[in-house]
Amino acid sequence: MPIPPPDRHLHIGAIIFPQIDQFDFTGPFEVLSRIPNSTFHIAWKDKSPVRDARGLLLTPESTLAEVPPLDVLLVPGGSGQVPLMEDETVLSFIRTQASHAQFVFSVCTGALTVGAAGLLRGVRCTTHWASFHVLEHFGAIPVNERVVVDGKFVSAAGVSSGIDGALRMAALLRGDRVAQEIQLYMQYAPEPPFHSGTPETAPAEIVATARAAAHDLAETRIAIAKRITKPATGPKSTSSAAAS
Amino acid sequence: MPIPPPDRHLHIGAIIFPQIDQFDFTGPFEVLSRIPNSTFHIAWKDKSPVRDARGLLLTPESTLAEVPPLDVLLVPGGSGQVPLMEDETVLSFIRTQASHAQFVFSVCTGALTVGAAGLLRGVRCTTHWASFHVLEHFGAIPVNERVVVDGKFVSAAGVSSGIDGALRMAALLRGDRVAQEIQLYMQYAPEPPFHSGTPETAPAEIVATARAAAHDLAETRIAIAKRITKPATGPKSTSSAAAS
Repeated sequence: MPIPPPDRHLHIGAIIFPQIDQFDFTGPFEVLSRIPNSTFHIAWKDKSPVRDARGLLLTPESTLAEVPPLDVLLVPGGSGQVPLMEDETVLSFIRTQASHAQFVFSVCTGALTVGAAGLLRGVRCTTHWASFHVLEHFGAIPVNERVVVDGKFVSAAGVSSGIDGALRMAALLRGDRVAQEIQLYMQYAPEPPFHSGTPETAPAEIVATARAAAHDLAETRIAIAKRITKPATGPKSTSSAAAS
Repeated sequence: MPIPPPDRHLHIGAIIFPQIDQFDFTGPFEVLSRIPNSTFHIAWKDKSPVRDARGLLLTPESTLAEVPPLDVLLVPGGSGQVPLMEDETVLSFIRTQASHAQFVFSVCTGALTVGAAGLLRGVRCTTHWASFHVLEHFGAIPVNERVVVDGKFVSAAGVSSGIDGALRMAALLRGDRVAQEIQLYMQYAPEPPFHSGTPETAPAEIVATARAAAHDLAETRIAIAKRITKPATGPKSTSSAAAS
């Protein structure tokens, strides 16, 4: 994908929603709001503040209808993305923007929302580790990497991986030097005090507890995925050949 | 410093303000809002939304006067911290909270605000790389590390280092296991796509440009530091022995 000319103004936009995980949004915002010659649009159905999963108030400043055609659509996740998977207003917004955007950038379980919009069939992508097994229910190809780029679809894994994904996006949009400038400004030379950032490296008992805590929400997501993809795949008795 | 008993409810609070760097706050919020048995207070002089340096609206939900005695006071930075260094309402709030808090946690140039409150004399601490040389003007002992803990004062370097600092704080408050649980939830296993996170590792020409861009703001901070510490240190002709 060619880098857009520097003199082309870029429109970057994010949806925010009740029970979002704020960091899925604020991490990428920190990076992408610093892209030269760009405007960042923060959008939701109306302009009332929404509370993130831990209570932080975030305020949208555009309605979905007001958002211009975007070059980049950022779709964050969090438990509040569950109802979005059956929200035709949101799914239609994502489909329309995706049809002309240069990139659709999902962070965390935002990938499941993009999947529910029907856009990830056959697409290599990732999501939060606790929902990784949900991706296949949308016909996506799950890839256990922190950031996955497949054509116009860029996906970051859980929460904090949105920072790494956004720096990759910055490089895709304006070149490595711009991404490096932003990284230096942010002093992003991370030193996690523990090695507990993935199920592969965290202490086993912590992973087991976290998996158990996340189980019901993941099952809910799978149930919705099965329900909304049913029209596309047909009844269970239909052969897979007839279902594509 | 002993870990507080798990059954003691912790009050954690942050000041936010116009032209804050939102990530100095939202990074630590993501971690500290997940501390078990705690309440997070987001405070400013009034409850009107404030815009961060890139335009993001953040909404305080407590006035400074309403904030209870805090166990942890988070002081973020950003260009908007400059006027706070001469804002007696803010400095007095920080001093009062610091007098009984278990920890004062500065992120980025928030350290300069804490320094302006007169709390960092003889304290080992850090701040954003572009303001590192400002710290000594508050009598602090600059330490070029990503997170510095000196007694009750915990400081993180620029912007994104607040995540690492907050995970250290979580461990100090509730033990390593809680910090590891939060790290796993956040999937914090960073993979920066470039090695440009510090002046020591970034490409030289990017560092030079960034230093030049940051020069005037750092000079303003030094000028304020000299002005406000003058009564404590006396006129320049006074010997240092008389100045302590």
